[in-house]
Amino acid sequence: MSPRPFNFSAGPAALPEEVLQKAAGEMLDWHGSGMSVMEMSHRGREFISIYEAAERDLRELLQVPANFRILFMQGGGLGENAIVPMNLSRGGKVDVVVSGSWSKKSAAEAQRYADAKVVADGSASNYTALPQDWQLRRDAAYVHVCTNETIDGIEFHDLPDLKAMGSDAPLVIDCSSHLLSRGIDWSKVSLAFGGAQKNVGPAGVTLVFVREDLLGHALPICPAAFNYKTVADADSMFNTPPTYGIYIAGLVFQWLKQFSYAGKNGVAAIERRNIDKAALLYGALDSSQLYENRVAANCRSRMNVPFYLKDDRLNDAFLAGAKERGLLQLKGHKSVGGMRASIYNAMPLEGVQALVSYLQDFEKHHG
Amino acid sequence: MSPRPFNFSAGPAALPEEVLQKAAGEMLDWHGSGMSVMEMSHRGREFISIYEAAERDLRELLQVPANFRILFMQGGGLGENAIVPMNLSRGGKVDVVVSGSWSKKSAAEAQRYADAKVVADGSASNYTALPQDWQLRRDAAYVHVCTNETIDGIEFHDLPDLKAMGSDAPLVIDCSSHLLSRGIDWSKVSLAFGGAQKNVGPAGVTLVFVREDLLGHALPICPAAFNYKTVADADSMFNTPPTYGIYIAGLVFQWLKQFSYAGKNGVAAIERRNIDKAALLYGALDSSQLYENRVAANCRSRMNVPFYLKDDRLNDAFLAGAKERGLLQLKGHKSVGGMRASIYNAMPLEGVQALVSYLQDFEKHHG
Repeated sequence: MSPRPFNFSAGPAALPEEVLQKAAGEMLDWHGSGMSVMEMSHRGREFISIYEAAERDLRELLQVPANFRILFMQGGGLGENAIVPMNLSRGGKVDVVVSGSWSKKSAAEAQRYADAKVVADGSASNYTALPQDWQLRRDAAYVHVCTNETIDGIEFHDLPDLKAMGSDAPLVIDCSSHLLSRGIDWSKVSLAFGGAQKNVGPAGVTLVFVREDLLGHALPICPAAFNYKTVADADSMFNTPPTYGIYIAGLVFQWLKQFSYAGKNGVAAIERRNIDKAALLYGALDSSQLYENRVAANCRSRMNVPFYLKDDRLNDAFLAGAKERGLLQLKGHKSVGGMRASIYNAMPLEGVQALVSYLQDFEKHHG
Repeated sequence: MSPRPFNFSAGPAALPEEVLQKAAGEMLDWHGSGMSVMEMSHRGREFISIYEAAERDLRELLQVPANFRILFMQGGGLGENAIVPMNLSRGGKVDVVVSGSWSKKSAAEAQRYADAKVVADGSASNYTALPQDWQLRRDAAYVHVCTNETIDGIEFHDLPDLKAMGSDAPLVIDCSSHLLSRGIDWSKVSLAFGGAQKNVGPAGVTLVFVREDLLGHALPICPAAFNYKTVADADSMFNTPPTYGIYIAGLVFQWLKQFSYAGKNGVAAIERRNIDKAALLYGALDSSQLYENRVAANCRSRMNVPFYLKDDRLNDAFLAGAKERGLLQLKGHKSVGGMRASIYNAMPLEGVQALVSYLQDFEKHHG
């Protein structure tokens, strides 16, 4: 088989080739069970073993403290925009930091259930810099921050320290698009959620990490299937879980546990490689006359790199030439235009090198 | 490869072998795209073509009228127990017919959002017969019926005719466990929903068929991701949909379109085979001294056949012997005990014949 192309999709996104090969090989018969993982009862011992290994490996990879529950849910990040306030707001105040498109949606959705207020907003910079001057309310039920904005290409490289800002409110992070790309400082976080379809697995699985003391306070109108306590008490099996997606995520966790780079292993290794990949790509963009990334240097996303051709009449030629070289899904989000290279965990260094090489060649011919 | 065992799981459940083989073969490269279906942007032309074909084939298979929308959602049947009243109740009255375990859960969940009342209940028969004496309320926002109870093994072979009972309320059916096993009389139904993990595909995809005039009346507390109008307006892409599950469902639809049996094709063919399979299995149970099915003859499920060994000390030996013969996942639901053979679309006639043969042999040795 010829080498696979490099897939820069923002999500659903590229998966490690080894994971796909393993899944293909096990499709008709998982470990001699005579069943595909898709065909297993979620309550049978075969699937339970898959589920428990996935949960254990994920906990180990991210060093999740024992007082956090890991939930495998459905509904994605947009679902969680409602599910979080239904579970945590108690109908009170919710502070939302708007750093881009996703947190803007979170603020709007939280309004259905609580007094949700935008306490900081990056609109003055057109969402190319982190929001400044956070006006946190002392009695907020929680503070919501999107730690990586997939569309705007902004990342909080350090999690905000609410205590240092005088707030005792729990911090909720939407980390959909950089989950597992780096470690998480759990001392600063009370709840983290993310859709799987970036670094974890297929679309349709949502991961929620929630500190146990936050369970059990859902609004009466919270559906049982989305009540964190109900889900936690049933070990994510109140509902039939998205079993095949959890299996694929489990294979990704195994892949990541064995991953090594620059003398490191696991998440530390992937984080180091992600830093190197991002530096390579931003360096190439910054040194060119044709391309530009508009995000402030201190908050450029290591996962999602939006960039513009200074002459946008070249966009179609750029995308067509990229596809010829096996560089796929580089078109930017429709709301902002331009290009976007998403370089998640599964993107090898060689993929970024190939993109940089193409950027330079294209500029030579069209710059 | 040796023949696959026969898998009687109630769900997630057996899939057609041809579907699994095709999925395995396309895992690393769908149709020369260089991508797994799991890796495709849901907004790219590759996945859109998969989605549109799936929707079109499903519409054709079930002859879904043009004034119904088909939504691919997340959250399963238990999720829909909340999502339906959030979208349809308008905070008013909801009539629920309780025919077993699943509709009982639906009634409890609807209470969060509406004046939900059990208007008929099969408890007098211990849920072995259809509920009688429906006390429908003239001003109900809708009537909820579970048309196949997976645990109790009860099926409405004919959909209730609410108009004939003097009610103009829309009929909502939870058809999770017999969806696609037979046709649907859309003149009697206003909304149908079902989790995919029985006859359609992997767990994590929920199908909703909703008449267009019912869209747009959701309660303000309905999450945007679960608002039928929002989902319909975005062609099920408001949220990132469970793309891989939709792809597998699409392969199942293609398989079913090509399915033929007894001179029939498609759903008519699979319905005929399901009737034959059920007749064979119930016949064997009824003619034995060791096994019994307790459901009234006029409402025995063609999909889920619960049965008991009259001496339950034989249960473990029965299950162990079944497994030796390649007859898997026959253990009954924990809430009712005994055995259960789920014989969904993907179960061939030969699987039921093998089970009947085992039932008879086991009875000879232990009866």
